[in-house]
Amino acid sequence: MNPAMIEAAAVRMAGHVRQTPLLNAPLLDRMAGRRVFVKAECLQVTGSFKARGGWSAVSALSPDARARGVIAFSSGNHAQGVAYAAAAHGAPCVILMPSDAPAVKISNTRAYGAEVVLYDRATEDRDAIGARLSEARGLTLVKPYDDPQVIAGQGTVGLELARQAAEVGITHAPVFVCCGGGGLASGIALALQAQAQGLQVRTAEPEGFDDMARSLASGTRQRNPALSGSICDAILTPVPGELTFPILTRLAGPGAVVSDAHALRAMVLAFTHLRIVLEPGGAVALAAAIFGEGLPDTVIAVATGGNVDPVTFATALDHSA
Amino acid sequence: MNPAMIEAAAVRMAGHVRQTPLLNAPLLDRMAGRRVFVKAECLQVTGSFKARGGWSAVSALSPDARARGVIAFSSGNHAQGVAYAAAAHGAPCVILMPSDAPAVKISNTRAYGAEVVLYDRATEDRDAIGARLSEARGLTLVKPYDDPQVIAGQGTVGLELARQAAEVGITHAPVFVCCGGGGLASGIALALQAQAQGLQVRTAEPEGFDDMARSLASGTRQRNPALSGSICDAILTPVPGELTFPILTRLAGPGAVVSDAHALRAMVLAFTHLRIVLEPGGAVALAAAIFGEGLPDTVIAVATGGNVDPVTFATALDHSA
Repeated sequence: MNPAMIEAAAVRMAGHVRQTPLLNAPLLDRMAGRRVFVKAECLQVTGSFKARGGWSAVSALSPDARARGVIAFSSGNHAQGVAYAAAAHGAPCVILMPSDAPAVKISNTRAYGAEVVLYDRATEDRDAIGARLSEARGLTLVKPYDDPQVIAGQGTVGLELARQAAEVGITHAPVFVCCGGGGLASGIALALQAQAQGLQVRTAEPEGFDDMARSLASGTRQRNPALSGSICDAILTPVPGELTFPILTRLAGPGAVVSDAHALRAMVLAFTHLRIVLEPGGAVALAAAIFGEGLPDTVIAVATGGNVDPVTFATALDHSA
Repeated sequence: MNPAMIEAAAVRMAGHVRQTPLLNAPLLDRMAGRRVFVKAECLQVTGSFKARGGWSAVSALSPDARARGVIAFSSGNHAQGVAYAAAAHGAPCVILMPSDAPAVKISNTRAYGAEVVLYDRATEDRDAIGARLSEARGLTLVKPYDDPQVIAGQGTVGLELARQAAEVGITHAPVFVCCGGGGLASGIALALQAQAQGLQVRTAEPEGFDDMARSLASGTRQRNPALSGSICDAILTPVPGELTFPILTRLAGPGAVVSDAHALRAMVLAFTHLRIVLEPGGAVALAAAIFGEGLPDTVIAVATGGNVDPVTFATALDHSA
């Protein structure tokens, strides 16, 4: 992994993946007691930063591999990112999803042009099905984070952020990043090291699923005891990535941990003051930036995704009223 | 009014007013049966395009007039836009609001640093109070639309749109613009005439409050029979502006009229596919772009504002589920 890979990914995705704005709001700053800048990746095509990694991975394939196609395991943002990129490249795309995934996620993934293969979580082995399909059709697996081209794609957020922060005069600030396996956080960290060394990544995770924070603190990869039980479903991963963890060990500050209540509150504040839609897992970095203690007077948060169903969002708003 | 005034306003507001993104989404296009591009002014500072006109007007004042201050009548987006601009210029700012305005609008306007003067709608004369205050303190009235510098400020949306449309290869399209008094629509029309003649403004209004559509059709300024009764409160004005109407007569296509149900549906589609928050009055242009008939295969909508209370928004989402 090196910064040139991120620059190259940015060149490949130009015109296909959106440069998202860096937002702020005077009344939000007043409420937080500090200046809070928000990189709004919820406005990305497909509604999350995952379109970047998907595009980077698919566009880096050889013409032969692309013609055979790609496969991914995901019921959420990664599925949509890979499906979008594959369709635009004319590459066949198979997404393996559990048969009990929400119907809207299945239909959205199909709408992006992917072939959705359903499996039964209780009785079938996802990896075995994936391996069989990959072998039979010569599909390339696009991993959600532990892949150099995926990390490079997510790192393009960091290139944009370095430029946008400089435009508003920010030279030193923590950059909170919602963290599952660490693909986005590590990509941003590499880009910032190259282009804005006063900006330091800090991962943000939900309470009880803080494998990255504990891993960074202990120096070795720690596992989460469970994989469900937080509203932040998009970022519940078992353990930091093999590629991402060493990068973050070297470049990131201590990990932040956020309660579900603060994540919901951040969703509502983003609604009220920034007029953007965040899913709970996409709001933990903003929650850390707003509610964290001992922070400097300017902070940045990457708001990673906005694929939330209307009922969940309405419930969050109702509770705030 | 001339395009040079719009260019000059853009120069004065650089760094203080945001260049908003032009968004689109593959799944929204599929649903609409055409390509729909959305200029997201809900992401503007203060949550609506009104920050542009406010900034333009306040920054165009002489140093003396600025030191004496400004006054505006508004309980909504114009109040916040003028208050934001005045505070940033160190200009005193008085906003006259009805005493039965929602508490959150009063407190938000105060939070932007304005002095809020309340009056009783039933027993007091707003214009008389405003005139007395203006005379006593030498305040300059910033009108919501019928003011050349306000129109010039709103016109900066058109300058950005001309450039952004060209970047994505759009040379011909209708540009639907949510319309109250016509300040935004006329400013955009002037900018597009100068810089992108294949893009034509079409006003969008709520059913029953279509004074501009009827005025454009008849050639003379028509009044609305009522001033309340639509959820699109932000754009209910009595009659087209004296300055704005001749501009739109010359440059705009026929006005579109949108039902409240379609405005609400457009809010939900913007939530789902674009992850932005729109107020009902800020969604009528998007509704016209999505649900209009006989439109070409590429259309643009200006999503003008996102200052909506959580309960109203949650209700719209609940009804869609």
